[in-house]
Amino acid sequence: MNGNAPIDLNKHVSLIYAEGVFGSQARAKFPMRAKTADGILRYASYPIGGIVDSKATERSAKEVLRAYLENCKNADLPIFSSFKEAQTKTRATILILGAAPEGGELPKEWEDDIVWALEQGMHIVSGLHYSLKENEKFRHAAEKSKAVIWDVRSDVNLQEIPICSAKAYHIKKPIVLTVGTDAALGKMTVSYELYKAALQKGIKSCMIPTGQTCIMIEGWGYSIDALPADFMAGAVEKMILEKDAKEYETFFVEGQGSLYHPAFSNTTISLLHGAVPTHLVLVHRPQRKHSIGSSLVKLPSIPEAIAHYEAAILPRYRNARVVAVALNTAGMTDEEITNETRRIEKETGLPVGDAIRDPDFVRRALERIL
Amino acid sequence: MNGNAPIDLNKHVSLIYAEGVFGSQARAKFPMRAKTADGILRYASYPIGGIVDSKATERSAKEVLRAYLENCKNADLPIFSSFKEAQTKTRATILILGAAPEGGELPKEWEDDIVWALEQGMHIVSGLHYSLKENEKFRHAAEKSKAVIWDVRSDVNLQEIPICSAKAYHIKKPIVLTVGTDAALGKMTVSYELYKAALQKGIKSCMIPTGQTCIMIEGWGYSIDALPADFMAGAVEKMILEKDAKEYETFFVEGQGSLYHPAFSNTTISLLHGAVPTHLVLVHRPQRKHSIGSSLVKLPSIPEAIAHYEAAILPRYRNARVVAVALNTAGMTDEEITNETRRIEKETGLPVGDAIRDPDFVRRALERIL
Repeated sequence: MNGNAPIDLNKHVSLIYAEGVFGSQARAKFPMRAKTADGILRYASYPIGGIVDSKATERSAKEVLRAYLENCKNADLPIFSSFKEAQTKTRATILILGAAPEGGELPKEWEDDIVWALEQGMHIVSGLHYSLKENEKFRHAAEKSKAVIWDVRSDVNLQEIPICSAKAYHIKKPIVLTVGTDAALGKMTVSYELYKAALQKGIKSCMIPTGQTCIMIEGWGYSIDALPADFMAGAVEKMILEKDAKEYETFFVEGQGSLYHPAFSNTTISLLHGAVPTHLVLVHRPQRKHSIGSSLVKLPSIPEAIAHYEAAILPRYRNARVVAVALNTAGMTDEEITNETRRIEKETGLPVGDAIRDPDFVRRALERIL
Repeated sequence: MNGNAPIDLNKHVSLIYAEGVFGSQARAKFPMRAKTADGILRYASYPIGGIVDSKATERSAKEVLRAYLENCKNADLPIFSSFKEAQTKTRATILILGAAPEGGELPKEWEDDIVWALEQGMHIVSGLHYSLKENEKFRHAAEKSKAVIWDVRSDVNLQEIPICSAKAYHIKKPIVLTVGTDAALGKMTVSYELYKAALQKGIKSCMIPTGQTCIMIEGWGYSIDALPADFMAGAVEKMILEKDAKEYETFFVEGQGSLYHPAFSNTTISLLHGAVPTHLVLVHRPQRKHSIGSSLVKLPSIPEAIAHYEAAILPRYRNARVVAVALNTAGMTDEEITNETRRIEKETGLPVGDAIRDPDFVRRALERIL
């Protein structure tokens, strides 16, 4: 596998399957469940035919995602209420599962749609926690039609992943990792906004995908929290070393978890130790006061978090610095945003802002890196 | 599985299988390979018949392990050069694989011995990285004789492990975790010496086993680094909560890895966040200057390490403190030991000493906990 997709997403038309969870009504109840679909729509450069969700009342992606899809090539993509109709109209040859089903179990209707897709010879891309290939029905249908199932989280050959030895330290180019005062704040989004801005400046930069959504967008990568503990940091190290060998100039490493989330902190520290970053961008959501992982864990102040993350890197003489504080301002009033931004700017002396709403913040953050 | 052994080690006689690696000649070449055998011999309270190693020139455990086995009930155990002879003489009904084979692959002679043992109906306890039950030959032999194979690392039912939410914070009794300036320093040994001393004081205390050797000694536990990332901290939390419910008064959590080992730091932080310790004991080997995981990583000073570990605990208002510094003094002269001990005592104001050689140090450390 080598961390690469077994299918070239650029040579196909994909459909994003988010049955029952993409529309704004479902979203009000389960805000995180279509996260993968959202990320792909905003950042993927490969051809996409549309989204499948029979329960959505909206008819296009931007009706649901609004500002999030501004200036995005996928904003006008149709939402289909029938998968078969979507397939016929778009002639898509890849089905991307863009959402996690409720409770984790595959509902019967998803199963039927997946089998039908495989029977048509459509390839499937899945970021679900379990391997679709382990379902006999799916495997059988795929074998018959020669369709490929890419299980993004589990298609991994451990023999090609080294045990981390902090080798990325030898790379003297910017390695930029996003870290957070908590998990699930939008670290991937911040990494992407910085990456896109670096590309626009003509810098040969790349994303280092560490979770399923980013892997589905980029067509390669390792889902770090799906690997055995001993290999987690090594997988990050390997990805950066390989891109370095291909003469990329700047690496944007998708952050995971948080040192302040009791269950996901292990993935965070593996990224800090595997990537050996030169620059950190701290992501924070002012409205969140406690970790989503535990109401016992009060989130740190920004200066505390900065000191903690900077001290966690190995080797410590790398002297990586937090160079910007990215705010997730969803749900805040303009006044609240201004006040919080000014307060943290004063407290830290760093660029502070929302990477989605404030391109000037992204520009200023990037100036501290390149 | 519930983290418990499927066989009661107290009701059987066990043989420790360490073919080719237990004797002092093999040990000179591979000092870490019989680590499991050594730990079991020193700390296990269940009946053991002897050790199997046809290559050893010594005839008893203490001839090899000397001071390490002083005052230990297993010191005089015989080393057998033939497994079959050992089984006949001791009538052992459990075979414990007490070593990792070179290169990770099971050598042919080990395989033959394991099959023979299973055919006799002997149960097998294995801490190898792969499951013995996945080998058809072993599974078949076990089914036939009704022997049980306990794969210590992989016999886990994830459905019974929670996602960690730092709940152990609510326990207002001593939770003592060993941490290190590096991995592979003897953290388990320090935990055990403290535990034994607490038992001698009449405290109803317990070990919380987090790695295969300790699990084999205690007959229960989770090998944390063998679990998927999301479950690592939760498994520690679960073990402590269960022992708390059984009214244990003090918990000694076996430490793993180090925040200064790039590949194993994820396991360390999962213990810090899952155990929510009240007390930390820092283990240090003065002779080691760089992490065994990377020559790039210079080990920290003792005050640096203390500050770093204390700051890593969640919730931070737990205010856990490092209460002692345990030294691994193997290979040091008496003068070096005295100098280093005094220097660190002066630097930290804490009890400092070697937990194996210096019972007074253990007593002083324990005074700061109980």
